[in-house]
Formats: sequence, structure tokens, C-alpha cells
Amino acid sequence: MQKNAAGRMVPVEINGEKQIPYLGVGKYKPTGRRYGPPLASCADYPEDGNKQVADLKEALLRCGLKDGMTISTHHHFRNGDLISNQIFDIAHELGIKDLRWFPSASFPCHEPLIKYLEDGTINRIEGSMNGALGKFTSNGGMKGIGVLRSHGGRYQAIQDGEVHIDIAVIAAPSADAFGNANGVDGPAASGLLGFALGDSQYADKVIVVTDNLVPFPCVPWQIHGNYVDYTVVVDRVGDASKIVSGTTAITKSPDRLLIAELTARFCEATGIIYDGFSYQAGAGGTSLSIGIYFDQILRKNNWKARFIRAGSNQYPVKMLEDGIVDYILDGQTFDLEGVRSMRENPNHLATSPFTSYNYHGKGNFSSLVDVAILGATEVDVNFNANVVTHSDGYLLHGIGGWQNCLFGKTVILPIPLFRDRIPVIVDEVTTLCGPGELIDVIVTERGIAINPLRTDLIEKAKNSGLPIKTIEELKMEAEMICGVPEKPQFEEEVVAIVKWVDGTVIDSIRKIKK
Amino acid sequence: MQKNAAGRMVPVEINGEKQIPYLGVGKYKPTGRRYGPPLASCADYPEDGNKQVADLKEALLRCGLKDGMTISTHHHFRNGDLISNQIFDIAHELGIKDLRWFPSASFPCHEPLIKYLEDGTINRIEGSMNGALGKFTSNGGMKGIGVLRSHGGRYQAIQDGEVHIDIAVIAAPSADAFGNANGVDGPAASGLLGFALGDSQYADKVIVVTDNLVPFPCVPWQIHGNYVDYTVVVDRVGDASKIVSGTTAITKSPDRLLIAELTARFCEATGIIYDGFSYQAGAGGTSLSIGIYFDQILRKNNWKARFIRAGSNQYPVKMLEDGIVDYILDGQTFDLEGVRSMRENPNHLATSPFTSYNYHGKGNFSSLVDVAILGATEVDVNFNANVVTHSDGYLLHGIGGWQNCLFGKTVILPIPLFRDRIPVIVDEVTTLCGPGELIDVIVTERGIAINPLRTDLIEKAKNSGLPIKTIEELKMEAEMICGVPEKPQFEEEVVAIVKWVDGTVIDSIRKIKK
Repeated sequence: MQKNAAGRMVPVEINGEKQIPYLGVGKYKPTGRRYGPPLASCADYPEDGNKQVADLKEALLRCGLKDGMTISTHHHFRNGDLISNQIFDIAHELGIKDLRWFPSASFPCHEPLIKYLEDGTINRIEGSMNGALGKFTSNGGMKGIGVLRSHGGRYQAIQDGEVHIDIAVIAAPSADAFGNANGVDGPAASGLLGFALGDSQYADKVIVVTDNLVPFPCVPWQIHGNYVDYTVVVDRVGDASKIVSGTTAITKSPDRLLIAELTARFCEATGIIYDGFSYQAGAGGTSLSIGIYFDQILRKNNWKARFIRAGSNQYPVKMLEDGIVDYILDGQTFDLEGVRSMRENPNHLATSPFTSYNYHGKGNFSSLVDVAILGATEVDVNFNANVVTHSDGYLLHGIGGWQNCLFGKTVILPIPLFRDRIPVIVDEVTTLCGPGELIDVIVTERGIAINPLRTDLIEKAKNSGLPIKTIEELKMEAEMICGVPEKPQFEEEVVAIVKWVDGTVIDSIRKIKK
Repeated sequence: MQKNAAGRMVPVEINGEKQIPYLGVGKYKPTGRRYGPPLASCADYPEDGNKQVADLKEALLRCGLKDGMTISTHHHFRNGDLISNQIFDIAHELGIKDLRWFPSASFPCHEPLIKYLEDGTINRIEGSMNGALGKFTSNGGMKGIGVLRSHGGRYQAIQDGEVHIDIAVIAAPSADAFGNANGVDGPAASGLLGFALGDSQYADKVIVVTDNLVPFPCVPWQIHGNYVDYTVVVDRVGDASKIVSGTTAITKSPDRLLIAELTARFCEATGIIYDGFSYQAGAGGTSLSIGIYFDQILRKNNWKARFIRAGSNQYPVKMLEDGIVDYILDGQTFDLEGVRSMRENPNHLATSPFTSYNYHGKGNFSSLVDVAILGATEVDVNFNANVVTHSDGYLLHGIGGWQNCLFGKTVILPIPLFRDRIPVIVDEVTTLCGPGELIDVIVTERGIAINPLRTDLIEKAKNSGLPIKTIEELKMEAEMICGVPEKPQFEEEVVAIVKWVDGTVIDSIRKIKK
């Protein structure tokens, strides 16, 4: 273990792989070269372009599935993923052990994989471990050590050769036999396949699974068949209705609505919203409400946003269709209106972690966004934030694009002052996911705290009439109401690490003490 | 020098780089990995995404332009390229020597570069050397040895690390300051930027030059700004009117029209044309006429083509708009109707040498095409063909996508029996560009020869009433009329080599004997 630049103790080696401790924002500069997967030859692929094999098992066998391999999957169907579990059922049936599962995210539907983590079919998950998988990991059940990466960090890890994918399995709502694939067409249309882009480009072997095989060419080819080894047709590739994961309804909580309103007023008062501005807001209830306030402010001023970075759903889609925004740059559709719009509207653009989030590129889109609205489970008095563990110390969810979005010009966390009578602002976050220097504003139902580094915002908000407070004041208010909760107790054993966007280790997650 | 599998003497080393002699179609299997360019970090790029610098000279200096570097450019403007010459003017002004120019193609507009080949600013061209550049090369004027590659071979060479590009300069009709770029918008809209795709992905440094800077995001982003180092705005980036290079008018020659008609009748009689078929035909007068015959056959039968691989122009565009074809998979627009269609019609798709032609991929589109209609300067009695040198031995033009298209299911060369009283069918081609085993049918104004390997086509054409002859018969007919011309005389010195699609050397081009 070694203390990193954020003062966190992190392992210098896990799972037999050396790790670089976090050095600070923008401090670690990679010196290597992009990973180069083995060269292929057309001579080894069918001349007629038909790469279809009988089923997923045959495809996995042809890919040479064996002990210790890394298998990647993607969360375009979110909780409606029907393929990932099948892969490991097949691996288990074949007696294969010690796989590394490298999903772009995991969901409650993946709970059945716990039995394979227990019996050694899967050694570890590198990707989000939430719900039951998170609890299992926090209790020390996983054999290997988990690795949490942001969406951008996942692309970076693949591109840099930090994670070598043996087999990528891409569940595609539409595909041709050559492997060209997209997410906008077919009975399970769920939007786009951006999370699988890096996997298609860099994995040794790539399998496309679909329930909607179309004659060549399948267009738009969000995934290029030129990267694909085998195609498989199944009865049902995913349940698109489950991309709506309960978070896409506008909040009805008066406190949350107040937070949303304060956030929007803050952005208006400080000039963050202007004719041609851009924003990114998630799909949670509060974020949705903020988007609606933004919409109103734009319409009132006869302004347009240049682009919304999304997570799209019916609200940004309506803004696009009403001409209130020029473009939606979408990473993931959160409802079927988003899917429809992406299919129909050339200004609703499919992006990927490469374009939007990869920190080891020549820039990315996230730093071009005027304001990013994000969540957090905890924030500390130095504006450091946690998004993966809960106040009870358990792994709660993955990082998603959260770390990547911290590079937005202004980052605002609209959060309740407490949840279930547990204050959200703490002295020190349980797990450090984002350094405070990148987090500009905390908006709560009882006031707004601005990071002292943002003297410009402090100045602009001065006579706004908004309830500007220090973060310490907000923390005290919460503690006056709720008291100071007990800290969760941990064992020494590290069960997972959290990577920063550059591949360095920003924090460790330890086993819960019983 | 070593004899390769086609019986041609080829050098095993040129310009200090080892070469692999051609081993036969599909015989050479690459064992390495894809080239990995140096990793970048967003920390080294402007947070606001604005990569614009004052001018091309500053961009080249910031890219570290120095002696011996490889500079790549692209021929999306064809004979209207206004940028390539400027690059070497700047290099000359800076006293830089021994550059390798790596264009995707060269045109007569590049004749001014001869002075830089003479004074050592440019060591050699790896790319097409036609017109004045070809003559200069054939006369032994170039210091280094030239390398001719197909469009797909160019992508393969970049991807495989065979050619390491130091600086790629992409002339873009439309771009944003971040470097996202496309060819469909702006005053110089010329279609697409597919030939620059590999360069953007693999070059150390990438410069985008435009005369139409738009606010972020420039969409469609045919080139991703995430690969781009610097952007430059100029008054005029290219002359799109010159993408029409004199070859896009339907032939009026009775002989050529007869060849076109025979080709179409052959395809109809042998069942090559069917409901859902696909074809690729170039932009020459004969090819255009064949496309028009195909169009008529489809309409007559109430059939549709699934896709046309193009080189698009007004004729395929009309078929697309009339619903006679589902998709145009376009690699290069040959007129402004093609540009318009690509901008407006989502079924007119931008492709690239990666999707269509790269032989070191997991398949490519070229082998999925039912019939490819190609040209040739010479064909020999074993159906081997030449497309780069003329009967006088001079380098005439580049390979383009010609070699790549040989992987179409049926390859037809509609060619006149003689040109300027010189027979086109010879005992042995001056330069071997395509092995006869991939060339199926020769259509001339005096008869059709089918490759004996295609017993299926011979059978189907038997009772077609078409003038089926042997290739020897055709050759004899031509020689009866024209006599046997004298062979050009060459020195020993190799001035250029011709690569096969897999990077091996299929033939050498020697200096013309005076």
C-alpha cells in the first residue's frame, strides 16, 4: 500500500498487475503507445461476409474461450441485458474458471452471476458492482480485487492496453451477418452501442449477438463489422423496456424540486446559461427537473442551447424537436423517446466514451460542456466527492461518466443535505472518486456552497439573492438536525480499487467489518 | 532482387526498409500487431477545445516538422487540392529535406512538387505518381524509390505500422476548432474524408485545415477531433469543382458503348444481376454507361439493387432517389450531385478504405460486391492485369481501389481491344498489379473472354448468344489489326514498387531506357 497524491492508501499491485497511485489532476502523463491487437487477414474470414455461427456457445468456442480470459459486455440494455448471464452459464457448463468480467456497467439483472463469483467461474468484476453484486464484493466474497473505472477510464484502459480483452460480446438490437450493428433499429432498439466501441476496436475476438438480422448493410453501422469475428442470432437479445431504470421521472419531492430550482437560478444568475451554452444533466429526478428549468430560461430569453450532452430522454428530445437546442450529443438513451429521436433525427448524435470521455485522447468533449450537473453519495468539506459507496460503506454503484464530466467548465452537485437522516456533507468522504478542485458548486435545499477556488462564481453570485453559504455552514446545519452519524467500520482487506480517468488509483474500497 | 510468387523480380529492400515479396493471393498472413501511436493526454490539449493556430506554417512547426518526416495528404479534392503544395512550399522555405510524401493520390495539380523532388525537399512519393510526376519518376528523377499502394493497401500499411506518418494534414470542407471535420458542408464541400481516416487514427500529429469553421460540434464528424492536434483556417481549402476530373461523362464512342452493352448483357445472361444484387463501377465513360444499362435491367424486371459501391455521381444518385437501389456505399464523390446526395440522404453512406478495402481486417466490403467493373491498361493471356504503367512503360496513374475491388464475386474488365492502335491484351503485362486468378471476364468490342477458372460463368454464358471467345483469340484479332508493338525498354534501376493488398511486393517499375 502507498499513499497517493490525494492522501489515500492504495495498493501498488492487485491481481498480479502493477498500479500507479493517483498523482493529481493532469499530473500523470502516459509514455507508452496505444495497444495494438493482433493483425487479422481477410483470408481468414468468409469471402461472402457471412460470419454467422449456430449459437453463442459455438461463437465462444471458436473464439477459444479458456481459463483466465477477459470477457467484456455492455450495458446498452441496462437492466434488460439478456446476454451477459448466458455467457457465464456457458463458461460454467464448459468448466471454465477464473474469468475476468469486464462489463461497461452491471445491473440488478446480473445478480445470478454471484454463484459464478462463488464457484470461481468468474474471478472478479472490473466494472460497476452495484446492488447485490456490490454487497457481495463489500463483504469480501469476490476472489479477485474489483476495479471501478469511469466510462472514459474504461476506454482509456482498453486503448492503453491496461485491460486486454480476449472476447467482447456485443448485444446488438440490429446487425447484419458481417457484424455491422446498431442500437436504433429492431424490436429491442435501445439507442446506441457506444460503450462497445473500444471493445470492438481492441478486443482479440468480437462476437455480435442480435435478434434482428438484416441483409448487408446494417446501417448506421455504429459497430463496424470489420472488427467482428462472429455473428449470432438469438430469439431475444435484450429487453429495451428496461433501459428505463426507474430514474427517469421528474421528482415530486418538494426538497428536490427546490434544489433543482436553486440550481437553475444559480446558473442564470452567474451567467452560466447564455445563448449557445451547453450542459450535461443525468437522468435522475432532480437532474430532469433542472433540465426543465433550463428549458424555461432558454425559451424566456429566446435563446438556444448549442448542445446537450446526454443520457437522453423525452425532455431533451422535446427541446431538440422544438428547436431549443441544436444538437443532442448522446452517450446513452434513457427512454424510448430517446431511441426514436436518435433513429429519426440527424441532430441527435451517437457519441461514445472515446469522443466524450477518453482522457488519453487529444482532448475530449467533456471539457467543452459549460455546466455538468452530477450527483454524489457524499461530499466532503474540501469538495471531494464519492459516488460509489454509501454511508454504510457498501459499494452502491459504478462511476459511469461521473469522473469524466468533472472536466466540464462548471460542475454542480445538486444534492439533498441529508438522506435518511444521514448528512451528505462529511469531513472526509468514505471513498474518493472526484477531487474537490474539479467540483465547483454544491446546491442543497438549505443553501449553495461555492468552491473557494471559483472566485469568479463567488463574485457573480454575490448580489443574486441566492442563499450562498460555506460548505462548513451547510455541514453544520445538517449535523444540527441529524447529529454526526457513526462511520462504517472496515477490515484492512481491499476488495476493490477506484481508478482515476488516467488509469491511476485514486482510492481503495475495503471489506466491511461485521 | 528476388523472384516473387508471380514470377516477378522485386527488391527485398528499398529506401532502407525490408520488403516481403508477394506470396500469392491470401498466402501472406501478418503475425504482428496493429501499430500503436503515442498515447496522448487531455492535459496537453486546450480545455476549451480550441486547437486553432494562426496558419499552416505554425501548425507544421508545432508538430515538429523536420528532415526525414513522413507527411500525408488526401485527394478528396482530386485535381482541386490547394493545400498539399503549400505544405512543401513551407518545408522548402524552412530548409527541410528528405520528406516522404504519402498522399492518398496525386493529381496533375501537384506537378509543382517536381522542383522539391529535384532539390531534395521531398525524397520520394509513396502514393500514385501520374502525369508529370509519373514521367519524372519513370525517368529516374526521384531520389528515393516510389511505392504504389491501393487505397486499401494504404490503410493496411498505416494500420500495420509499415508506414509511420509523422504529420497528417487533412484539408476539410467543414470543421470546428476542436478538429471534428467533414466533407459535406461548406463552400468547398466535396463529399467525404474517408481517405484521411487511417491517417487521423494513426499519425503522430494531425492538422485539420478548413475554410469553413463552424461552432462545435461540426457534424457529421467524419474525422473525430479527438485525433486532431491543431486546426487551421485558410481562405480557400480546395476547389470542389475539380473533383469532376473529366471522366464523368457517358461515353459517346460507338465501340465503348458496345463494350458497355456487352458487359450488361453478359451480367444479365449469367444471372449476375438479380433482385438484391450489388455492384461497383468506376466513373469512367464506359463504366457509367454500364451503370445505366444495369439501371434499365433493374427497372425492366422490377428489381432493386441492394447497394452500389461508388465513386458516386449523378447516375447512382438518381437510382437511389428513384428507389432502384437501397444504399450507395460511397468512397469518393465524383460530382456535386454526389456531394449533395451524401449530405441529404441517410442511405448515401460515407465509407472508408478501412470498411471497404483493408485486407488486414476481419473481412471488408469489397468481397461482398456481386460484380466489380474495372479498367486496365493491359491484360495478359493469363488474365493478369496492369493499371499503373502504359504500353510505353511510363507510370501512368495510381492503383486507387482497383486491387481491392478484385475481391468482388465477379470481376469484369470492359476494355477496348486496342488503344491508339496498340493492343491491350498482351503476352505479359508490363507491370503486374492484379493476379489473373481474381479477374473473371474481359469484355471487348470484339468479344468476351471468360477466365477458364470460372467454369460456372462459361457454362451459364454458353447459349447466351454473346460473342464468347478465348483470350488468345481476342489477342490474335487485335494483333491481326495492329501488329505486335515493340516492348518498352527499361534500365535495371527500380524507380518504384507495386504493393499487393497485403503489403507484399507484387512488381517493380524500372527506369525508362532513353
